[in-house]
Amino acid sequence: MISKVKNAMSSLVGGIIPHGHHHQHPQHGAAQNGGADSLPPRFPYGRPEFLDLTPELLQYSTEHASRPVITLKRDSRLPWRTGYAEVINAGKSMLNEDQASCELLYVKKLSSKQQRCSMLLEDSGDTTGIPIHFWGVFDGHAGSGAALAASKLLHRIIRDRLCDVAHILENQNSPPPICLAKNGSPFQAEAKKGACLDGEDQDGPLDEPRFHMEKDISVESLVMGIIETAFRQMDDLIEKEKESYSISGGCCALIAIHLLGKLYVANAGDSRAIIVHNNEVIPMSNEFTPESERQRLQYLGFLQPELLGNEFTHIEFPRRIQHKELGKKMLFRDHTMTGWAYKMIVEDDLKFPLIYGEGKKARVMATIGVTRGLGDHDLKVYNSNIHIKPFLSCCPEVTVYNISELKHGSDDVLVMGSDGLWDVTTDRDVADAVSTFLSGREPNDPLRYTLAAQDLLMRSRGVLKERGWRLPNEKLGSGDDITVFVIPLAGLELET
Amino acid sequence: MISKVKNAMSSLVGGIIPHGHHHQHPQHGAAQNGGADSLPPRFPYGRPEFLDLTPELLQYSTEHASRPVITLKRDSRLPWRTGYAEVINAGKSMLNEDQASCELLYVKKLSSKQQRCSMLLEDSGDTTGIPIHFWGVFDGHAGSGAALAASKLLHRIIRDRLCDVAHILENQNSPPPICLAKNGSPFQAEAKKGACLDGEDQDGPLDEPRFHMEKDISVESLVMGIIETAFRQMDDLIEKEKESYSISGGCCALIAIHLLGKLYVANAGDSRAIIVHNNEVIPMSNEFTPESERQRLQYLGFLQPELLGNEFTHIEFPRRIQHKELGKKMLFRDHTMTGWAYKMIVEDDLKFPLIYGEGKKARVMATIGVTRGLGDHDLKVYNSNIHIKPFLSCCPEVTVYNISELKHGSDDVLVMGSDGLWDVTTDRDVADAVSTFLSGREPNDPLRYTLAAQDLLMRSRGVLKERGWRLPNEKLGSGDDITVFVIPLAGLELET
Repeated sequence: MISKVKNAMSSLVGGIIPHGHHHQHPQHGAAQNGGADSLPPRFPYGRPEFLDLTPELLQYSTEHASRPVITLKRDSRLPWRTGYAEVINAGKSMLNEDQASCELLYVKKLSSKQQRCSMLLEDSGDTTGIPIHFWGVFDGHAGSGAALAASKLLHRIIRDRLCDVAHILENQNSPPPICLAKNGSPFQAEAKKGACLDGEDQDGPLDEPRFHMEKDISVESLVMGIIETAFRQMDDLIEKEKESYSISGGCCALIAIHLLGKLYVANAGDSRAIIVHNNEVIPMSNEFTPESERQRLQYLGFLQPELLGNEFTHIEFPRRIQHKELGKKMLFRDHTMTGWAYKMIVEDDLKFPLIYGEGKKARVMATIGVTRGLGDHDLKVYNSNIHIKPFLSCCPEVTVYNISELKHGSDDVLVMGSDGLWDVTTDRDVADAVSTFLSGREPNDPLRYTLAAQDLLMRSRGVLKERGWRLPNEKLGSGDDITVFVIPLAGLELET
Repeated sequence: MISKVKNAMSSLVGGIIPHGHHHQHPQHGAAQNGGADSLPPRFPYGRPEFLDLTPELLQYSTEHASRPVITLKRDSRLPWRTGYAEVINAGKSMLNEDQASCELLYVKKLSSKQQRCSMLLEDSGDTTGIPIHFWGVFDGHAGSGAALAASKLLHRIIRDRLCDVAHILENQNSPPPICLAKNGSPFQAEAKKGACLDGEDQDGPLDEPRFHMEKDISVESLVMGIIETAFRQMDDLIEKEKESYSISGGCCALIAIHLLGKLYVANAGDSRAIIVHNNEVIPMSNEFTPESERQRLQYLGFLQPELLGNEFTHIEFPRRIQHKELGKKMLFRDHTMTGWAYKMIVEDDLKFPLIYGEGKKARVMATIGVTRGLGDHDLKVYNSNIHIKPFLSCCPEVTVYNISELKHGSDDVLVMGSDGLWDVTTDRDVADAVSTFLSGREPNDPLRYTLAAQDLLMRSRGVLKERGWRLPNEKLGSGDDITVFVIPLAGLELET
């Protein structure tokens, strides 16, 4: 994520692990240091394990001048023949702050000993249970720590939470029980005798409970809820582990999970996933930015003005106000408005707007350009003691695609990319490019999807010319870190 | 609005004006009385002025047993040849709590004397200035007062606010000035010399303002903002006038405004507007209900738990919890979730859920079934001192339809209806019915659109059979008050 956080010189945080002294680098980012200077990093910097980079290649991957595209090795194979490519930014941060994960995990009922243990389960190598395929793109800012931690741990948290309900998932045609006893079996409380079928007239806050109104919850809703709560657990875990480790910065998190014939896509941040099916685009995520979440953030600032630290106003104006404009009328909008109206300018309006700037330059508290993600617990406004975390949400939006109910050809794919991919390329461009690329390649080519990912990446990065990275149309290419997964929707069949 | 508010026996509030003693009726609704027993009503009960009902017809309109359909008189003509029909509920409240308005107003620059006056302008009969056409549907609950007040005043508030910017509207091809001096002329503050074009690196909350970032605001956004703020002013006015008058209950507000070739639809509540164009449906509003606004309300309850009065929990469960289920796990969702997950039940979870029930039976605090509208300032949870107003929003969602850019035939219409119309009839049903009806009528028939409104209304009301009001398919008809406008989109041309 390029320059998502201002004033946080994060480039050195974490360091390059092959050379060892990864926790001795100075931390420049006053906004995020949180006194963690002396703590060891939770995970050393590196690229995704599935890339299996040698120390030399890892060093090579950080060349800002040439920006080499790193792809899956020719002899590596990810689940579903997933394609992957990544490239570092054009110099904004020393390290590539994007991270990625791709995992095959198994959901099975936990032993009671495992249930009692609050630690994350290690991967046991046991391949019994319900398979889950997991893909994650984590776009870090102000350091690599949060993205690294999420890429190593989030899939395990989700797997563990799914294990808690393995017995329900195994029985996926029955709705999940509303209430469970401690041992996980359904707990049947008796409905009161004579409960009426119509809640209209008789229940009230002071009445005894009756069961005449009971919502039907689907297994799909349960999986969505588990993913949503797992994001929060991941965020809490980062906060907790920061007591013992350095976990720098924050990250956007975009994940996809295949479980029992459904594809769940969860997004917290400004990465994006689309499905390309018969060359049609199906958007699978929305971006969460200061512009798209303006009203949520303004509402919080309105309800809890103490979070604005007497420096910011929750009201938005089309530009900064000058002192001599006091008493004049200016266009404004607050948390309730989509349009603009005039208001008389008062002293309080001279404060800096909570949300300011347009498009990629929009910022929360003049600092951060994304409003959902993991980490950022110490993030403060530059030169102040104002915390930004209360305005950030770690909650993803989850969408579901019923993959088993549709027929997919070998050119139908899920594309997941960090914002570096999408900044200069539209959904339609990506769909056309991937469809054209794949239709020209042998369906059995094992590198098919990785080459497609590489092709997409290069279309957004461009090539280095005299005036910087340029696209074929001479427009500026993306100078950001770029990470791309191209996942064939027929992947399950391709494997077998 | 049928049974939107429980435990508030509102039927007598206001009384029927022809018999005089309209402020001497007892007020039963403990939830809403606010000590207003001795105050006169702000407006006497009646039906919309454009119906021009005699006292006998007004009495006749309240016949719950026969539910007569009241339409525009044969010799009346509304602007744009607008069609209108209404019917009272099947007995839930003594009076028809829906109200409606249809107005032609003019926007022109106010004299400085008028500007200084904070009163609403009277309709002067002056037909110079920019014409505004206005339609409003106000679906009251727990009394008629708020709906009556909104139907008499909201269009005047909007007109006055538009008059404030008449000089900007007259010049609609120039964007509205960001800043205005007291006399309304643009105020030009100097941009600081040397302002850079890129806000990326130099501005911060403590810097001097610079104008290198200035948003372009359109006239359309200004009109939207004025409508949004006018709803708030209407709500504030009801609160203020309640010091001197009885203004019972609350109301949903759905309005449409035609101004300078654009149709603005603003909705706060669960009424609905659709455009039928070439027999295609274009939804122009969304409903705001405990289900659609669950997360907003839960978020407020989470941030300000004192508003829950120690009686309610912001967390949602699929049903009420029994005491013996303490310590068990139950499905839940909070303000951050769309799916459901399990949580251990603790004492606090035994409180009544802030949002409870499904579909038309969903309620906020077991009381109200709609989450946006005007009024309700005194609404409390039955038998408690817990105010519900903080959870209700008076802010509409505004949509815009560029009416002058499209060609409209005489069968293309905007349909606006209170929820009574839509409860038993889908958008598609309404579109088909209105298209079929209109295609069978002479285009020059002056009653064309009123007969179409009557036809739609009767399709939702049904006919009285032994087992109540029934639709042709024997399903229950709507027992609610029903109000329908059918507005021809070619109306401006039809008039000339």
